[in-house]
This record gives sequence, C-alpha cells and structure tokens, in this order.
Amino acid sequence: MPLFLTFEGGEGSGKTTQIQRLAEALQKRGLPCVLTREPGGTEIGAEIRKILLDSKNSRLGPLAELMLYAADRAQHLGETIRPALRAGKTVLCDRFADATVAYQGFGRGLDLQLISDLNELATGGLKPDRTFLLDLPVEIGLARAKARLARQKSSEGRFEAEAHAFHEKVRQGYLRLSQEEPGRFRVVDATLDVEAIHRRILQEVEPLLEAKP
Amino acid sequence: MPLFLTFEGGEGSGKTTQIQRLAEALQKRGLPCVLTREPGGTEIGAEIRKILLDSKNSRLGPLAELMLYAADRAQHLGETIRPALRAGKTVLCDRFADATVAYQGFGRGLDLQLISDLNELATGGLKPDRTFLLDLPVEIGLARAKARLARQKSSEGRFEAEAHAFHEKVRQGYLRLSQEEPGRFRVVDATLDVEAIHRRILQEVEPLLEAKP
Repeated sequence: MPLFLTFEGGEGSGKTTQIQRLAEALQKRGLPCVLTREPGGTEIGAEIRKILLDSKNSRLGPLAELMLYAADRAQHLGETIRPALRAGKTVLCDRFADATVAYQGFGRGLDLQLISDLNELATGGLKPDRTFLLDLPVEIGLARAKARLARQKSSEGRFEAEAHAFHEKVRQGYLRLSQEEPGRFRVVDATLDVEAIHRRILQEVEPLLEAKP
Repeated sequence: MPLFLTFEGGEGSGKTTQIQRLAEALQKRGLPCVLTREPGGTEIGAEIRKILLDSKNSRLGPLAELMLYAADRAQHLGETIRPALRAGKTVLCDRFADATVAYQGFGRGLDLQLISDLNELATGGLKPDRTFLLDLPVEIGLARAKARLARQKSSEGRFEAEAHAFHEKVRQGYLRLSQEEPGRFRVVDATLDVEAIHRRILQEVEPLLEAKP
C-alpha cells in the first residue's frame, strides 16, 4: 500500500501550501500523488462543504454539523481515498478524522466517544500513516485566514467567525491528540517559514518511502 | 404537548395531499399546525435534500446517504419540530425516522442497530404520537411518482430510479415496523380515493385531540 498522509491544524496554519510543496517533491521522485481535502474531496462532498463552511449557515446545529462531516468523510473514503490507495497513489489529505475530534469534540464539546464511533464508521478503521499537525498561535492563524478569505472574497468563513476561545480549544485538542498518538503525529511549528516547514515534513516522509518500497 | 404526527409510505403514496387535507381540517377547529417534511424541513435541510434526491448524485454511497439523513433530522428537530411543539403547534411531518429504517435499513440493507442509534441521537428519543403508513403496491406508487416528477420537471428522482425490488423491500420494511409498534402505527390503504383516506386518518386523529386538551 502507498502512503496516506494527512495534514491538520487550525485556520491559517498553511496546510494547503505544504501539501502542494510535498506533492511536487514526491512527484519529482516519480511517485504519483492525489491531493485532496475534507470537507469537499468529492463532487458530493463539495456540496456538503458549501453547507458546512458558508458563513450564512450560522444556524447549523452541532449535531447536524457532526453528521455532515461524517457523510462527507464516508463519501470521500469510498470515492477518492480508497480507490487512490488501491491504484498505488500516495494520498495527501488536507484535514481528516482528527479534525472532527479537534473541532467538534474539543471545540464544540460534543461527546468524544460518539465522534470516535462515527469516525470509525466513516473510515472503516483506515488510519493515516503519518499526520502532520501544523501548530501555531490562534491569533496568527486567524489573522492569516481572515486576510485570505477577504482577498479571495470567499464565503467560507463560518469557522473563522467563531470566538477566539473556540479556536484555542481546537488547538489544545489537536495537541492532545498528538500526545495520545506520538507514533502517527508529527507536530510542526507553523510559524517557521514555508521552506523550513517543507524540509521538516520531507525529512519525516523520506524514511517512510524507504520503508514502503 | 400538542400532537406530533408523521406520514410514511413509498413513492407516490399520497402523503403530501393527506397532510394538507388533515392540516385544513385541524386548522378549521382552531388548531395551529406546522406542515414540514424530511429531508428538507429547514433552510439547511433544503440544501441536504438537494444532495439526497438529485438524480445526478447516483454515486452517493449508502453510508454517506445515511449520515446526510441523520444531519437533516438533527437540524430539523432542533430548528423546526421541537420549537413548534413547544409553541403549542401540531406538527404534521412528511417522513421521519421510520423512513430511514425502511429505506436505508430494509431497502439498502444497512445495519438496523446503527440506524436505530443514529435516529435516537438525531431525535433525542422524540417519537411521533401517531404514524400513518400509506401503503400501496409498488407499481402503482412508482407510476404516480414518476408521472409527477415528469409533470413538475423535477430532478428529485434518485429514489424513483431504484429498481422495483428496492421499493418492494422498503414497503415490506414499513409493514414490519407497523407490526412492531401497532400502538403508534396506523396502516391506511393508499389505493382508496383521497376523501376516503382523509376520513380514515381524521377518525384516528380525533380521539387523540380529545385526549390532549
């Protein structure tokens, strides 16, 4: 099986940039990659993403939100991730099951066991080979994310509109997850410059490539 | 608490017509009613409904489908059904939790315990006071439903596109549910004319109104 790598972190942590940089580096070595994301890694998921991220949907309840993430994930696994891995492609995914634990569990306070059960159901137990947590202080990330939303005139600001305290809980939740699974998680300081973060990630991925011929 | 009544049945069973007729009869007696439906009983639910029913979404997986219904239901309960009941209004709902058991459980073959758990989660245990199952042979219902879709140039034909055998399993599933909860379910022969079905339903609702002053 090829590698399944996920990238996690709060708003504005630079996941998208790092995924692109890593994909370029892997493709240069002749490894075909699939870049995908949650929510929205499928056509149906793109419709779910609109509901989840549109800042006009402020009335979306926490349980409905959780179920929409689970729906997006189940569809994503079946239609994108598993077929790509079966076809021998490395999958680089921008947010995955850990994000639901961090945002809906630690952030919104929903039951962690319920989230774990739904994740297990949606993923069929598939776990990433490595998860890179791009960690940075909330205020820096939010300022970056809000600037990007304004620049792109994006309506995807439902989470950016949450209070600072919410994002702080998400950050602490992610850090806790990384402590619970130190074998899978690598915490990367996302205040470093793009190139330094990229080198750090590549350094972690290289031994995995050697181990999986 | 005012009454919570749900209407179940396969495609083309005439639920919508009967809900409207019953609401008129109740409103004439001075009872305020809320007419709603699943999926799509809220603004967010209308977006979920589009995904679920659009015939172009043939790739929607069974698990993602199940989660989308759960999301719609959780939102519907929180935003429409519970507030209406709290405000003293009778709620008439076109499909509810039983539909997921019939369609995704009996029809698609998903685990019934899983569906029951998700329903419990989404509804917080709220059960209808009465559920009217409008039962009729699959071929009659499907012919009616397909004629309506064509007449309304509707794209909501994803379920109508399923095979006859699927709809037969749904019908048998509904009948089994009605046998398991004979106190809540009333099975109505939906091949009767509109007026006869309406009288039969009203006959069942009247004693409930007297019991709930």
